[in-house]
Amino acid sequence: MRNCIVAQSGGPTAAINASLAGILEENERSGYFDRIYGALNGITGIFDRRFLDLTAKMDDDPAFTKKLAITPAMYLGSCRYKLTADTEDASVYEDIFSVFEEMEIDSFFYIGGNDSMDTVLKISAYAKKTGSSIKVLGIPKTIDNDLMHTDHTPGFGSAAKYIAASLREVWHDTMIYHVKSVTIVEIMGRDAGWLTAASALAREDETTAPHLIYLPEKPFSVPKFLNDLHQLLDNQDNVVVAVSEGIRDKDGNYLSAGVSTSDTFGHSQLSGAGKALELLVKEAFRVKVRSIEVNILQRCAGHMASKMDLTEAAALGAHAVKCASEGLSGHMMIIDRLGNEPYTTQMATYPIEKIANGVRSVPLSFINEEGNDVTGEMLAYLRPLIEGEPKISYKDGLPEYLSVRHLIKR
Amino acid sequence: MRNCIVAQSGGPTAAINASLAGILEENERSGYFDRIYGALNGITGIFDRRFLDLTAKMDDDPAFTKKLAITPAMYLGSCRYKLTADTEDASVYEDIFSVFEEMEIDSFFYIGGNDSMDTVLKISAYAKKTGSSIKVLGIPKTIDNDLMHTDHTPGFGSAAKYIAASLREVWHDTMIYHVKSVTIVEIMGRDAGWLTAASALAREDETTAPHLIYLPEKPFSVPKFLNDLHQLLDNQDNVVVAVSEGIRDKDGNYLSAGVSTSDTFGHSQLSGAGKALELLVKEAFRVKVRSIEVNILQRCAGHMASKMDLTEAAALGAHAVKCASEGLSGHMMIIDRLGNEPYTTQMATYPIEKIANGVRSVPLSFINEEGNDVTGEMLAYLRPLIEGEPKISYKDGLPEYLSVRHLIKR
Repeated sequence: MRNCIVAQSGGPTAAINASLAGILEENERSGYFDRIYGALNGITGIFDRRFLDLTAKMDDDPAFTKKLAITPAMYLGSCRYKLTADTEDASVYEDIFSVFEEMEIDSFFYIGGNDSMDTVLKISAYAKKTGSSIKVLGIPKTIDNDLMHTDHTPGFGSAAKYIAASLREVWHDTMIYHVKSVTIVEIMGRDAGWLTAASALAREDETTAPHLIYLPEKPFSVPKFLNDLHQLLDNQDNVVVAVSEGIRDKDGNYLSAGVSTSDTFGHSQLSGAGKALELLVKEAFRVKVRSIEVNILQRCAGHMASKMDLTEAAALGAHAVKCASEGLSGHMMIIDRLGNEPYTTQMATYPIEKIANGVRSVPLSFINEEGNDVTGEMLAYLRPLIEGEPKISYKDGLPEYLSVRHLIKR
Repeated sequence: MRNCIVAQSGGPTAAINASLAGILEENERSGYFDRIYGALNGITGIFDRRFLDLTAKMDDDPAFTKKLAITPAMYLGSCRYKLTADTEDASVYEDIFSVFEEMEIDSFFYIGGNDSMDTVLKISAYAKKTGSSIKVLGIPKTIDNDLMHTDHTPGFGSAAKYIAASLREVWHDTMIYHVKSVTIVEIMGRDAGWLTAASALAREDETTAPHLIYLPEKPFSVPKFLNDLHQLLDNQDNVVVAVSEGIRDKDGNYLSAGVSTSDTFGHSQLSGAGKALELLVKEAFRVKVRSIEVNILQRCAGHMASKMDLTEAAALGAHAVKCASEGLSGHMMIIDRLGNEPYTTQMATYPIEKIANGVRSVPLSFINEEGNDVTGEMLAYLRPLIEGEPKISYKDGLPEYLSVRHLIKR
């Protein structure tokens, strides 16, 4: 028997299950693996011996991979678990490899973001060190688009599409009244501004939102921001501002406001940048101000997934199966962009040690000099990634996704 | 010449432009009006003489009404303007009717919510009093579903669909980790709980979200809420709670938390119920807690509009044209539900004086005895309203809506 284990880790995206579907479909073509097991809740599923036989799922339902590919979040569940170095404690590694042996595992695929690639690095290095022939490969996913050495990451395109569509609808909502108003939209991305930049795709023409865009890659100055706003409000009624949750001043301090309950057991915490800017703008201008936090739907809105994103996510999963069959280990699958007109890419690989624990920020050439918008180069980069709409099946008026009841721990 | 004016007022919905499209399409069939004018920004468009010739728009683009029907928010813009009684100041009314005369207006249609129906009441009463033959009719729209004497209101079904789809995706997002977590989702509806109730449609089976639902129609008790949560957390990892922004205690006090900036120019304000509950739950349980405010997309997410909602909104617009041609004035169009299996309705009318300024709350038989869920009766009421998906055209990966540049005041 030649089997493999797949697991998912990190935060959810609309595309991570498409990579899993890509693995299953490629193996259906090639027949390289006899059985494909899904470990539940990432690497912890191996510790706890919690597995799903995905080949059996495919046998039971011929449409399984099609449904899987459009189901958002994580069919196999996730975990937040950092492996300690094997030099400190080898017992965890011994446990993992004893499971591999017992289950006749040939390859281990880990679909995830930065932290997950650290796990791929450590397990593949341990395999090499101990002379194990088991292949360990990483498949990227993160809405943050901040993994090194890949043109972009699966999950980003769908999140970008959701954000751009939301901003477009927020603009239509905002401009119905003739009163001066400022709407501040806070978007995810603590260290990299890719998702906030995607808000620029919402523009229908030069009058439409967003009118100002601030990314964490450039220091945020409150006086400069108020001045930017002031100039716009002189000429138009409604201004929409897109800000990354990660904007910070030149000394690296995040913008935030305090929140506390008024009762005696009052608990307090910090709000995000959007709320802090809302309060600042209210103080500075006599206009209607609202802040909107684009909520977790930006990472799990399957109903607004990008077809291009799902297609590429599946292609990376398929590529991982091919690479494993050719004996590759210790690499992450990457997307190389070959050109924009027409948009063409190829699936490739990169050594995992050069990827794990790095962060890919937005290049400064993608941000305008004033630091309040993105450039044409950024738009050209983003546009192909949100193209196309996958066929989502609706039942009783709602998107129909695969059940994830198997994730409930009894 | 026999012309009419249409205007829109109140908050945006995904269906209000479908009612406008219904007026245009019915008139194309019947030819009753020569020209249909849109007043920009509600009744204030009449004061300011800001009109759009909608018949000309149709002549210019044969697909105009199709595009209009799926464009969210308000193509004609809105206003918040309450007419003073003509007994206090008749000059505003004289101005309106002088415009009507000048433009050879036969009928005036106002599409809106509660406040807009007050305007319909006053203008129709003034017409009657002064012996004017001008017909004034109201066409309902509000995501809040709280207008009297209609089974439901256009805009509600689309908002309900968006909320249910969001809750389903939030559930998939939430349950990927095996840590005890509470997710509180705050939904619009200050006085009526219809929208919050719609979250119940998200359930795929008895394990899925939302697990608790609180509407403003029943007093909210913090100890009872914490007890409800406690019981659930004993048996499952992830709990999702749907609460109306309008929940209040038995003395009528809204739940809220204070928010303030920490800087010296600190401004402060109140947060919503979701944030207040988040802080309370953090205090009471050692679990991961998050609150999510379903943002303004719940009222303007054209990309998740209900086909049933758009169809009914258009039918009410069409019905208004028929009623005007038959000489009716001082009424609002309503939807009568004839049955649920199959779902059948008829468009009808109701005297405006019995509608304006009333609020239709959720009947107590639609809420369970414990006050933490809805009943099967509510689900049967809601289900047909979110049925079907309209064909949305996408361009460059995003929903393509009609431009609203004409709303920009020069």
